[in-house]
Amino acid sequence: MASSPSPGYSITLRVAVSPSAGSTTDLASAVAETGAAVTALDIVESSHDVIVVDVTCNTVNEEHAQKISEALDARPGTTVRKVSDRTFLLHLGGKLSVEPKVPLKNRDDLSRAYTPGVARVCLAIAANPEDARRLTIKRNTVAVVTDGTAVLGLGDIGPAAALPVMEGKAALFKQFAGVDAWPVCLDTKDTEEIISIVKALAPVYGGVNLEDISAPRCFEIERRLRDELDIPVFHDDQHGTAIVVLAALINALRVVDKKMGEVKIVVSGVGAAGSAIIQLLQAQGAEHIVGVARSGAIHGGQTYTDEHRTWIAENTNAEGFSGTLHEALVGSDVFIGVSGPNLFGAEQVATMAPGAIVLALANPDPEILPNEAAKHAAVVATGRSDFPNQINNVLAFPGLFRGLLDAAASDITTPMLVAAAEAIANCVSEDELNPSYIVPSVFDARVAPAVAEAVVQQAHS
Amino acid sequence: MASSPSPGYSITLRVAVSPSAGSTTDLASAVAETGAAVTALDIVESSHDVIVVDVTCNTVNEEHAQKISEALDARPGTTVRKVSDRTFLLHLGGKLSVEPKVPLKNRDDLSRAYTPGVARVCLAIAANPEDARRLTIKRNTVAVVTDGTAVLGLGDIGPAAALPVMEGKAALFKQFAGVDAWPVCLDTKDTEEIISIVKALAPVYGGVNLEDISAPRCFEIERRLRDELDIPVFHDDQHGTAIVVLAALINALRVVDKKMGEVKIVVSGVGAAGSAIIQLLQAQGAEHIVGVARSGAIHGGQTYTDEHRTWIAENTNAEGFSGTLHEALVGSDVFIGVSGPNLFGAEQVATMAPGAIVLALANPDPEILPNEAAKHAAVVATGRSDFPNQINNVLAFPGLFRGLLDAAASDITTPMLVAAAEAIANCVSEDELNPSYIVPSVFDARVAPAVAEAVVQQAHS
Repeated sequence: MASSPSPGYSITLRVAVSPSAGSTTDLASAVAETGAAVTALDIVESSHDVIVVDVTCNTVNEEHAQKISEALDARPGTTVRKVSDRTFLLHLGGKLSVEPKVPLKNRDDLSRAYTPGVARVCLAIAANPEDARRLTIKRNTVAVVTDGTAVLGLGDIGPAAALPVMEGKAALFKQFAGVDAWPVCLDTKDTEEIISIVKALAPVYGGVNLEDISAPRCFEIERRLRDELDIPVFHDDQHGTAIVVLAALINALRVVDKKMGEVKIVVSGVGAAGSAIIQLLQAQGAEHIVGVARSGAIHGGQTYTDEHRTWIAENTNAEGFSGTLHEALVGSDVFIGVSGPNLFGAEQVATMAPGAIVLALANPDPEILPNEAAKHAAVVATGRSDFPNQINNVLAFPGLFRGLLDAAASDITTPMLVAAAEAIANCVSEDELNPSYIVPSVFDARVAPAVAEAVVQQAHS
Repeated sequence: MASSPSPGYSITLRVAVSPSAGSTTDLASAVAETGAAVTALDIVESSHDVIVVDVTCNTVNEEHAQKISEALDARPGTTVRKVSDRTFLLHLGGKLSVEPKVPLKNRDDLSRAYTPGVARVCLAIAANPEDARRLTIKRNTVAVVTDGTAVLGLGDIGPAAALPVMEGKAALFKQFAGVDAWPVCLDTKDTEEIISIVKALAPVYGGVNLEDISAPRCFEIERRLRDELDIPVFHDDQHGTAIVVLAALINALRVVDKKMGEVKIVVSGVGAAGSAIIQLLQAQGAEHIVGVARSGAIHGGQTYTDEHRTWIAENTNAEGFSGTLHEALVGSDVFIGVSGPNLFGAEQVATMAPGAIVLALANPDPEILPNEAAKHAAVVATGRSDFPNQINNVLAFPGLFRGLLDAAASDITTPMLVAAAEAIANCVSEDELNPSYIVPSVFDARVAPAVAEAVVQQAHS
């Protein structure tokens, strides 16, 4: 995946060196020579005979970690005692805990929080079901639902192996927006069964976030649950991405001083994410969009079996352009890629209109590397954290659900998604805006509250 | 339910009195005169014209609270501004929160807890599913599953209204045994659907606690899930009660110096709880048990359609006794009731053997009131918190699941249940043991660890 050292592959080597083997600085140099980035050196033990040092460093991958260990062992007077993988250490025992919000120290506490007092609260909800939003965790709780069929870039790894991602997602919900989120990893791939399970689970939750369910089942599941449930259902892989793309494009257009209604936009990738992006851009006024598949542009002159392509053919590309991606790029203002790696190069960007915007979101390898795109584009963004302008769903989903829960919303509307995107875009002030800063930092604490407020306003309008 | 003031019905009245209306002490007396128990007086505001006092008191029920408010309003110079129900206040927003156990403050944290680092953890679990117990919340997490059909004594109030109970249960799991428990309130009563949903949810959980599901569906659900899942499944209403009853009986027999194998035991109530109790008592050596239904004693001379009665007929009452409950009590050593209110009186207890033990667990109104039973019985216990010797499942389930999770157990065995009961019984030392203290306090912090250790030992034996 990555070719440079990453904190996702951080290890700690516990190394014993004889004092004669030289200083710990030499040790750090030896590690650095292998291409690792040393982040900490801690002396654990020191005597006349031996110094024990914990060397923490970011590595490229597991092979690299192995190589570092071997390289140190090969040094005279040096022994690697243990290699700890910091990512695995962090995951030991899971990443979430369930905590009581009420005291349970004595009989009075128990009488109120549990029997007999709780019976009155139950009866109040039975008499008035709306009270569940006031008197239970439903008020603030979201289900993060997956079947483990399309996890990150890893594919169908199953519900148990998907759990660390869903736990991480739940942790982000809390960290960024105070939302209690709970992983629901389902051991079934049956569309109807997933729908009926989520419906049966709904009493506990104020919202549903669908995650990493493979296409095309994810669309049917989302559509049906939106129809049949009275709590909002969000498919993050589609609409979360669409929100952040729209936010990025709003600000990129501010940078190059062009208007949404006037620019020619090429969208590469005509699946779930692509069509969600197109719908949201159109809701914000985009009028000239061409969707491009591997087979070329989607246009009204052709019949498609796939529902997304059919919709795109009917709703975009008014001029009926039917060429390749490279041909579509000629004279276009904006490229948005949610497709695959390395589809074009700097020479194609050169054929775009002046002030070109390239949002190349294929992960981990974008449609064009940012440094290539930047040769001719005015603004470049990717999905990666190691380049500027990361298009990251974390900017959208926490605040969106915060707003949905606060408004006790039963549905997610397109105006809410647009309002969320505008709120994200507006977190970059006129002074901050530049080609390398079109979306706020993932850690910008202002984003989630701003998104939440925008969603609440839309819900009440 | 209760006829004396209870903290489950605690209210706070905000009362404005003119200084001429007398002291706050008079106010407290006025409240006490209505039969409420005043627990706190707080002056909120004081001026020349008015004193505002928060009077907190335990009341009998909502009607009583209303009466107190009216009585105060009727006093000259006194106005009740607001009545707050402390039980409802405690439940506002729900009783659980989901907390991240890992920091997510910067990019390095994110890289390890979420993408890209989390991908390696996912792949490790995909390659070795057993790692889910090491690297995810499965390690420490239990599903508290209900369909809301038999909640407390309230009956079929539905999954949303059941949630406050399940949240309370989850809070107890954490408070007493550090177990992360999560409410699963299912909006379906279909046995097969409940079974398939719990199976589908299982990847996230290390155990399942079935709760407040109406008979007979609860038995089929428990049996099938135990067969088909590789994590332990526990039906608390049956086996939790059975564990604590066995613990209580072990100690009650110590008090009266009788032996389990020799005493004659009458069990009133031949449903789920009754048959689970009988099975566990037999596992501990009880030999003379008679189960009694409303229609009289269950015996081999009759054919039953109900599975529990059939089992009880085949496995108890070797002498074929066929009389009524009152007749069964004559000469018996132990009465265990999990049936209904007011089934017999002191005169029937007088017919029991000397040193009689009465465990009258019907809730809220026991088979016989403890003060009646105590006229002739040596040891009396109930399910209520306002009498000595409360038989409360809280003594069993937290420690039991702590042990099951720590042992990574896939099944719950009868020897584990017996070991749990013995551990609870042993928390009452020889010095502490007396007719009013046969089970430890619900708040005795030694109980859960002792139960957990006993279960782990059984799991490993």
